[in-house]
Amino acid sequence: MEISRENISDWLKKLQDSICSDLEQADGGSKFEEDNWIRSEGGGGRTRIIKEGNVIEKGGVLFSAVHGATPDFLLKEKVHSNLAIAKADQANSNFFATGVSIVIHPKSPMVPIIHMNIRYFEMDNGIKWLGGGIDLTPHYINENDAKFFHGELKRVCDKHDPTYYPKFKKWADDYFFINHRKETRGIGGIFFDKVNEEISFEKNLNFWKDVGTAFAPIYVELINRNKNKQYTDKNTQWQLLRRGRYVEFNLVYDKGTKFGLETNGRVESILMSLPKLAGWEYDFKPEKNSEEEKTLNLLKKDVDWINTSG
Amino acid sequence: MEISRENISDWLKKLQDSICSDLEQADGGSKFEEDNWIRSEGGGGRTRIIKEGNVIEKGGVLFSAVHGATPDFLLKEKVHSNLAIAKADQANSNFFATGVSIVIHPKSPMVPIIHMNIRYFEMDNGIKWLGGGIDLTPHYINENDAKFFHGELKRVCDKHDPTYYPKFKKWADDYFFINHRKETRGIGGIFFDKVNEEISFEKNLNFWKDVGTAFAPIYVELINRNKNKQYTDKNTQWQLLRRGRYVEFNLVYDKGTKFGLETNGRVESILMSLPKLAGWEYDFKPEKNSEEEKTLNLLKKDVDWINTSG
Repeated sequence: MEISRENISDWLKKLQDSICSDLEQADGGSKFEEDNWIRSEGGGGRTRIIKEGNVIEKGGVLFSAVHGATPDFLLKEKVHSNLAIAKADQANSNFFATGVSIVIHPKSPMVPIIHMNIRYFEMDNGIKWLGGGIDLTPHYINENDAKFFHGELKRVCDKHDPTYYPKFKKWADDYFFINHRKETRGIGGIFFDKVNEEISFEKNLNFWKDVGTAFAPIYVELINRNKNKQYTDKNTQWQLLRRGRYVEFNLVYDKGTKFGLETNGRVESILMSLPKLAGWEYDFKPEKNSEEEKTLNLLKKDVDWINTSG
Repeated sequence: MEISRENISDWLKKLQDSICSDLEQADGGSKFEEDNWIRSEGGGGRTRIIKEGNVIEKGGVLFSAVHGATPDFLLKEKVHSNLAIAKADQANSNFFATGVSIVIHPKSPMVPIIHMNIRYFEMDNGIKWLGGGIDLTPHYINENDAKFFHGELKRVCDKHDPTYYPKFKKWADDYFFINHRKETRGIGGIFFDKVNEEISFEKNLNFWKDVGTAFAPIYVELINRNKNKQYTDKNTQWQLLRRGRYVEFNLVYDKGTKFGLETNGRVESILMSLPKLAGWEYDFKPEKNSEEEKTLNLLKKDVDWINTSG
């Protein structure tokens, strides 16, 4: 099949359909509602939101495909190491970007928050790249779940290149880091961007599609493992504080959020990532030897989830 | 009395004492707890936090006085229009900064959120300036309260200079603006910075002290006017969404917060500004002709609160 922007965005739309269907089934209570929107400068999106489900309290599975004059920030960036592109070329170039973004905030503090994004970008002058990632933010870290989650991501990576998992796992650790707290957002996952230059675009596209396809079965498994666990008010209070940290990361550090807000993106789609409720408590310290303390102590970079747990 | 950094920071400590005492009395239920902290590079602070009061759900009145090598960002900034300072001079300069910062989140959606900050900055080479402001974020805008609030601020300003209120009111409108929402954080107030260069420092210091002193009586009056008003679950839901916007402003735009987080400031003191609970709802639209819609429609710049209301 020819690789074209139309083929890629059609594939993403189908992925959005199948993920929404899998999540509705796993939730068993609520359905996605759809908002179609148009970008005045070109393109638009299909935002799907689910709320007040049995499992999912608030979540979104978003598709978008936008195009137009390439934004300044991209023209300034050195995008390719092995392509010499005249500035003049870039200045006249239009861009096309398409992707699927997901954030799911579950109701139960025992079910982890998940985030996925896969994106494709091209310019008229031939530059194109793929990026994406999946990362998990458990309110309480369960080491078996962490091992399963990272094991599945490693399996997807290893199928394509044995160097991918260690490289993209580290990238996620570094990216999903709340610097002012000196803690990671969650247990990380994989993150990658612009990985098409040294090898074939087709190889990368296959890997990238496999990441998108891996999302639903991984998260449905994590939902099923945890959705029936009992929890207390204390667990819910802790969930609110962890969600507060999630808000801090997204508003202070997340590049997609910052870029979207600065470039007049569709605010409601960008900020669908924020939870229904989040909390802050001055100088909160978890009790000694509590589950909350255990989780806090594990929110750091470079944990080998596959080999140290379980 | 001689103007010195010691005198100014002593004055600020006494202001912190008297504001805490006035707020405890107005609350009638809870007391401030104090945290003293030390900054490794020089100086420290006295953080006072109140929570779960009759009126105040979560709030802080913070004093700090820090010193050390002048941060890079300030050396790069052109700080004085009428002083020619050799770069070499600046590079060798130490700084001293002291201030009081307040954010109060009330429990009742009928009582407004308030923020105040006054700050003094000097460098060893003789550069010094004052800055500050007070602004109000009602969950529901009451036009009589808005008229009272702005009227009081105008009175403080007019006592010193008739140009201050219009200038500093506009500054607040421009500063407390959530650009991605195209709405102001609340009804503004006054905001000023580096206002010492064209007139005498002493004149400015007197104005600045009057702003600090005006805070408690203004807010206590607003508490007393509103604390006994009835409210519903719908009002509380709306309050959560307004607090969500407050979080967005503070984490995305507020310069003090950004600077603090980027320069390894004391996170718990910086983020005391965030509420106990905040909420987000996808694409929330208030009902037609509701109080919520009325408030949203008033969240804009350049409203003449003194002359159009009441």
